[in-house]
Amino acid sequence: MNVRFGVIGTGAIGREHIKRISQTLAGAEVVAVTDVNQAAAQQAIENFNLDANVYPDDKALIAAKDVDAILVSSWGPAHEESVLAGIEAGKYIFCEKPLATTAEGARRIVDAEMKYGKRLVQVGFMRRYDHGYVKLKEAIDANEIGEPLMIRCAHRNPTVPETYSTDMAITDTLIHEIDVLHWLVDDDYASVQVMYPRKTKHALSHLRDPQIVMIETKGGISITAEIFVNCQYGYDIQCEVIGEEGIVKLPEFSNIVTRKSGKLSQDILMDWKDRFLDAYDAEIQDFIDSIRKNGAPQGPTSWDGYVASVTAAACVKAQESGVTEPIELDERPAFYDEGARKNEVSA
Amino acid sequence: MNVRFGVIGTGAIGREHIKRISQTLAGAEVVAVTDVNQAAAQQAIENFNLDANVYPDDKALIAAKDVDAILVSSWGPAHEESVLAGIEAGKYIFCEKPLATTAEGARRIVDAEMKYGKRLVQVGFMRRYDHGYVKLKEAIDANEIGEPLMIRCAHRNPTVPETYSTDMAITDTLIHEIDVLHWLVDDDYASVQVMYPRKTKHALSHLRDPQIVMIETKGGISITAEIFVNCQYGYDIQCEVIGEEGIVKLPEFSNIVTRKSGKLSQDILMDWKDRFLDAYDAEIQDFIDSIRKNGAPQGPTSWDGYVASVTAAACVKAQESGVTEPIELDERPAFYDEGARKNEVSA
Amino acid sequence: MNVRFGVIGTGAIGREHIKRISQTLAGAEVVAVTDVNQAAAQQAIENFNLDANVYPDDKALIAAKDVDAILVSSWGPAHEESVLAGIEAGKYIFCEKPLATTAEGARRIVDAEMKYGKRLVQVGFMRRYDHGYVKLKEAIDANEIGEPLMIRCAHRNPTVPETYSTDMAITDTLIHEIDVLHWLVDDDYASVQVMYPRKTKHALSHLRDPQIVMIETKGGISITAEIFVNCQYGYDIQCEVIGEEGIVKLPEFSNIVTRKSGKLSQDILMDWKDRFLDAYDAEIQDFIDSIRKNGAPQGPTSWDGYVASVTAAACVKAQESGVTEPIELDERPAFYDEGARKNEVSA
Amino acid sequence: MNVRFGVIGTGAIGREHIKRISQTLAGAEVVAVTDVNQAAAQQAIENFNLDANVYPDDKALIAAKDVDAILVSSWGPAHEESVLAGIEAGKYIFCEKPLATTAEGARRIVDAEMKYGKRLVQVGFMRRYDHGYVKLKEAIDANEIGEPLMIRCAHRNPTVPETYSTDMAITDTLIHEIDVLHWLVDDDYASVQVMYPRKTKHALSHLRDPQIVMIETKGGISITAEIFVNCQYGYDIQCEVIGEEGIVKLPEFSNIVTRKSGKLSQDILMDWKDRFLDAYDAEIQDFIDSIRKNGAPQGPTSWDGYVASVTAAACVKAQESGVTEPIELDERPAFYDEGARKNEVSA
Repeated sequence: MNVRFGVIGTGAIGREHIKRISQTLAGAEVVAVTDVNQAAAQQAIENFNLDANVYPDDKALIAAKDVDAILVSSWGPAHEESVLAGIEAGKYIFCEKPLATTAEGARRIVDAEMKYGKRLVQVGFMRRYDHGYVKLKEAIDANEIGEPLMIRCAHRNPTVPETYSTDMAITDTLIHEIDVLHWLVDDDYASVQVMYPRKTKHALSHLRDPQIVMIETKGGISITAEIFVNCQYGYDIQCEVIGEEGIVKLPEFSNIVTRKSGKLSQDILMDWKDRFLDAYDAEIQDFIDSIRKNGAPQGPTSWDGYVASVTAAACVKAQESGVTEPIELDERPAFYDEGARKNEVSA
Repeated sequence: MNVRFGVIGTGAIGREHIKRISQTLAGAEVVAVTDVNQAAAQQAIENFNLDANVYPDDKALIAAKDVDAILVSSWGPAHEESVLAGIEAGKYIFCEKPLATTAEGARRIVDAEMKYGKRLVQVGFMRRYDHGYVKLKEAIDANEIGEPLMIRCAHRNPTVPETYSTDMAITDTLIHEIDVLHWLVDDDYASVQVMYPRKTKHALSHLRDPQIVMIETKGGISITAEIFVNCQYGYDIQCEVIGEEGIVKLPEFSNIVTRKSGKLSQDILMDWKDRFLDAYDAEIQDFIDSIRKNGAPQGPTSWDGYVASVTAAACVKAQESGVTEPIELDERPAFYDEGARKNEVSA
Repeated sequence: MNVRFGVIGTGAIGREHIKRISQTLAGAEVVAVTDVNQAAAQQAIENFNLDANVYPDDKALIAAKDVDAILVSSWGPAHEESVLAGIEAGKYIFCEKPLATTAEGARRIVDAEMKYGKRLVQVGFMRRYDHGYVKLKEAIDANEIGEPLMIRCAHRNPTVPETYSTDMAITDTLIHEIDVLHWLVDDDYASVQVMYPRKTKHALSHLRDPQIVMIETKGGISITAEIFVNCQYGYDIQCEVIGEEGIVKLPEFSNIVTRKSGKLSQDILMDWKDRFLDAYDAEIQDFIDSIRKNGAPQGPTSWDGYVASVTAAACVKAQESGVTEPIELDERPAFYDEGARKNEVSA
Repeated sequence: MNVRFGVIGTGAIGREHIKRISQTLAGAEVVAVTDVNQAAAQQAIENFNLDANVYPDDKALIAAKDVDAILVSSWGPAHEESVLAGIEAGKYIFCEKPLATTAEGARRIVDAEMKYGKRLVQVGFMRRYDHGYVKLKEAIDANEIGEPLMIRCAHRNPTVPETYSTDMAITDTLIHEIDVLHWLVDDDYASVQVMYPRKTKHALSHLRDPQIVMIETKGGISITAEIFVNCQYGYDIQCEVIGEEGIVKLPEFSNIVTRKSGKLSQDILMDWKDRFLDAYDAEIQDFIDSIRKNGAPQGPTSWDGYVASVTAAACVKAQESGVTEPIELDERPAFYDEGARKNEVSA
């Protein structure tokens, strides 16, 4: 049987996911939509030619009998309430990041899910499904580079809109590195320090850009993460893990090689949406397949959402304080150990 | 509505496609299967948990009311008859290569399709859906390298089974280059010459390996194609188009970069099945989408199948004669001009 | 006329330079040698078939009429005295790093040279003559990447001998980055912080390895320098400058590309001596040519030696304190402005 | 003692070599020059500040007592006579390509040298001294790729002057591949065929460009050499040797890597003179060192010059005939076996 989705929030990302589920992936369909803007919800049905109902709000949609799973792609502050309602109704939940806007909110979801007694929630951290990151993890897990000692990464955007603020460098941008890196090396974060290099003239006055975030894990791994969101030249994601016996690094985004006008060159992506297209497909397909096969999602958990929230909050604090801030996580409940073990996805 | 497939031939490739349609792609389902080995057909239904019927032969399957499209993945000599029957029944047809084992057979299919009056057939030349080749074509069509003058390509396999014969270097291996290259430069083949370099000790006594095939197009482009199917080191597809103002080249297959033991390295694929996975998905998804949207496939046509057959036959003749052989194609019917124009797929 | 060299110190590096001057470079010869081990000095004459005299000590060698230039390649603590004696005698001086083992010592040399009134001294910082670094500087100076904001570099050795101590990571290893980076971006260092990632099991108990040194320049550039001297896999020098509009990066050390056994690979150097061979030749040839043409060296100055000494001392302090330490340089005398301007070498 | 050179021909290449010997290399000096244009010879002395005499012609220069070695860089048709006179006088001879303009002329030199009884002549095939080719040869000789089966190479120039004719694609351009490839695989040439792809619009009407030269060796290796001298985009030398177990390929010319304006790029050389600068230095330094150390040059021999002449003549014949032409070499005299063995230069 197809997994029947109810989509909460039909903005840009919601529409991307509706298109994905109805036109690209196997084993699922969209049967319900809602949005604070009802007309937008109706429009989505028409645009994607869905056989679906519009609901007045998330609660009504969640209550619908034919909805097996909800996809939460509303604006961030609304996520927590929808997810908690979904858990209470025992529906599967795919929630876009952030799981909640506060660490406390994320913790409430964790507790609700544990109380329900079964994994229902997957958070939209798609990088774990990217071919390159999966290969990095395989190499590290196979001990090909020995124990990881350092990670160097960079997250660069050509430009950002005027609404982008200094803390969003953490909560919107670095948040992906925050999720994927602890998964990659199977370690917990311990502390963070933020440095501000000379500011680029291409950043608006209210924005510190670039930033360097130095995170240390409990195992002693030093992570150096550059965030540079007005780099002009392209959208560029770099990640390199330096181990005791070797180094593994993400490939450049694959593109044809040109020789022309005295240059040997490859195009760099300009639009972030193109970088993880395959990973977006894969995360939702895995969510669908896991539900159909195992009755539970196996991707990033509520606990991963909680880890991201706590870590992001500490990073924002370090942005402001200028000194090293601790990252204080609760102990991971045994409930999520299983989830963690199942977390490995194949390329 | 889903496109309902009937699959003719449930061997290795047939099973791959059944899995793809039922578990990976959107908008289609498998409702009918047949195989000369009825048990194998039944087994496929069980393995992939299909809601499908087994039919005694291709004719019965094609006649089934609930079959919208047939997927021909039986052994090569059986293709022509199934395709002709499919056309007569007005069913959509996705036919694995070869469309027919002779140029005459392919021409019969072309004529039958024209008589039917509407495009029904797509041939399984998946490379046109590979991201790298699509980008090469975009660059060439955008005149980024000027007029193409030469193409250098290589098709290398680590090893081949004992049953692999010298002519299969053309009919099973080079056949993919034969299809993709004329599409890439929008030109027709004119003549071919085959050279045999020193034979590798890793080839069995009955096999000439490697081979170099030199093809000239009507527009004067020189194609140098190396076929080397016991190269030991990996499965490697290279293609480089040299134009009046520049060169474009396929990327290496994307993989993480490792520094270890004095080497900076990337893995090369060993298994050909991994190389075009995305392209296999994309060709069938495009077949499904085109049928649903336009009521006709837009991928490689019967005419392309005919071109491949004629060209392969001339190459085999050149293998034997040692001299330059003409490649004599009929004039392309206007019927396929439209198909040709529609042929462009987006990345 | 040839530049006639007197070589002080005929150990490994001294012998390399003797060989270089007598067998590889143009316009110079070795006419005098001395070493604390007189037999070694004599041996060098025989090995390289020199027409040269052995002197009992540096003072006697410096006093020799036929010595135009001295090359100081004795052990570090002896450098200062030889250089000061050379300046007093008005001889040209090529001094291997360090110019002096203390910042005060380096300053004394600076003062002596200014008092003498003419540039005589070149310090053996060969990286400024490396083709890659020269190209980086050209690109930065030509404003190809806009204002530099960050530098990421790595200095990795496969292993180090037992005598290698934690502070030598600065004074022997990072010292080359210290020199080349301020030259590259034409900026002065302001402060430094040292972090210790998880220690590799391949380092002996007395050694912290790897280390991350974060240096900030007066202009606000953030430099992240990894030192990892037991990385096992090879000798690897990385440097990447991130500017407001783009990034430039050192090339990998050039080597043939191999496809074999499922790997696409290039050899990485294992021996540091191979990495800068051309640069060693170029620095001495430039020293010779500048003297012959302009009557003064134009390479790294005494002031650069002083900058390196002060900076290295601050880095060692930061290694011990764990906090950010200031790098307090005297103001650069106008005397060295000219030197700085002349400093640009062509590729 | 320095090797004292007499330079015959002070045009562009002669001046390059004069500069090299007097300003870059060790162990040699220029003591004599001659040119059909006496003023040019005099000018060279002044420009390079030489302590040298001008001679009225090659015979007078060769006769000069203080001339140990002659460097023949006059125009091609004059080479043979100068070289024969040099041999008769027992002088060492570095002769720019071609050794002679005809195979018969080259054979006369071979015979004269054998009659003299000692190796005196080195031909200016500098590629054997290029780091990349040396590494290719090391890998092949170490059996890293098994027996070589195919070679793919390309020789591309951005443009050529109006005087460049179709046969010069062989005699001026491919001549370098002709020399270096038989050395690389230690094999002799057997036959050649030339093909003309579609002509680039950037070539003048009298010139066929590009060309593809297919050479087969006695050992059965197939060489595919592209010559494309109006490729516009840069000066680009490619060489790839495909063996039974793997492939080795020349590196791209090393250059810094830039990320800018949506491109990841490296500069390609535009000027051929920059490509083999190090190799030009190394070939003459080796000539000097071998003479000083062994009393005989060890680089490319008169026999190599003869092989190049015979092969080039066959290629030109194949250009005109359009069919496969034999390459008929005399048997190599034992006299040159020793030379061949000594031929290996280290990187």
